[in-house]
Amino acid sequence: MADAALDFWFDFASTYSYPAAMRVRALANAAGVKVNFRPFLLGPIFVAQGWDTSPFNLYPAKGRNMWRDLERICADLSLPAVRRPEPFPQNSLLAARVALVGLNETWGEEFCVAVFRAQFGQGQRIDDVATITDLLTALNVPAAATLAAAQSDENKMRLRAQTEDAQRRGVFGAPTFTTADGELFWGNDRLERALAWATRGG
Amino acid sequence: MADAALDFWFDFASTYSYPAAMRVRALANAAGVKVNFRPFLLGPIFVAQGWDTSPFNLYPAKGRNMWRDLERICADLSLPAVRRPEPFPQNSLLAARVALVGLNETWGEEFCVAVFRAQFGQGQRIDDVATITDLLTALNVPAAATLAAAQSDENKMRLRAQTEDAQRRGVFGAPTFTTADGELFWGNDRLERALAWATRGG
Repeated sequence: MADAALDFWFDFASTYSYPAAMRVRALANAAGVKVNFRPFLLGPIFVAQGWDTSPFNLYPAKGRNMWRDLERICADLSLPAVRRPEPFPQNSLLAARVALVGLNETWGEEFCVAVFRAQFGQGQRIDDVATITDLLTALNVPAAATLAAAQSDENKMRLRAQTEDAQRRGVFGAPTFTTADGELFWGNDRLERALAWATRGG
Repeated sequence: MADAALDFWFDFASTYSYPAAMRVRALANAAGVKVNFRPFLLGPIFVAQGWDTSPFNLYPAKGRNMWRDLERICADLSLPAVRRPEPFPQNSLLAARVALVGLNETWGEEFCVAVFRAQFGQGQRIDDVATITDLLTALNVPAAATLAAAQSDENKMRLRAQTEDAQRRGVFGAPTFTTADGELFWGNDRLERALAWATRGG
């Protein structure tokens, strides 16, 4: 019998990916499900749907509700009060490239969680090399060498391939959870269902 | 202390309003929360957002996911396999007008549940007078007199006022749950949170 497994697709700029990233490890461990963190870029996928920014900006009523809803969710999780980064959405390219380097080493997940916390817990800009350097340094990761690896052509291509893989699987938003048997679950609020599915199908 | 209460806003054409309508009465009773069924029309609200049909039609990837997600949700609730009514979305005007008459009498909630079941459990057209007549008859409600009351100018104005009230409260989709203290919860998946909020605030 194969191990139960779940791919966790997220864009660092995505607001609901924040509570998902804060929850997924503990819930997956409790359920005995392997989770694979897969950062990708929503931008090209939104462009393909005709959007040039976050739908939360395009549809203000939806956006207002999202921020309030996120506040309530984070309060229930005892996370710090939500900060809205400026600009919103943040450009997540640099953070995603660095995360890919880390996910090939040992510090990837911790870095992902730290990026989300800095952005939505502290309102920091994640497109700023200084922010990313601070986060790497706090994890005892050599920042300069890591940033160089992140900006290598090979790593840039890996992020592009990951985004294309997301698109091929029908990912249209974040967070999304996909299973080995092709089920797709969209949204932080579908994490429990996705884990249950992965366990049943494992 | 005021009774805990929740307004349940829905459009009969809304897919996720279906499981919400099937769940809300039992969950609200268990939580000791009064629920007020408030059918309205999403059409004018979607038009104000620049949409001339359901976003599930405008964004096919989102639409495919919604139908699959709804299948999974209904399976978990032991509801019949989901049927996609043709056309989708259905015109919900007639059903909403009749529901308003029923909600002023004693059979409103049962009628609402019956409309959702006919549409998404059996694939019936809810814009068809014959369907509505059958549903009323099954509830021992005099169909002809009720349809006449539903199409009266006064009742038409009530539905318009209800939709305007939804818009004023920031409702932008369905189902939506609103509380007396102005909180808004959007989506079938927020029903439990909305009930918890109403209980805390009651």
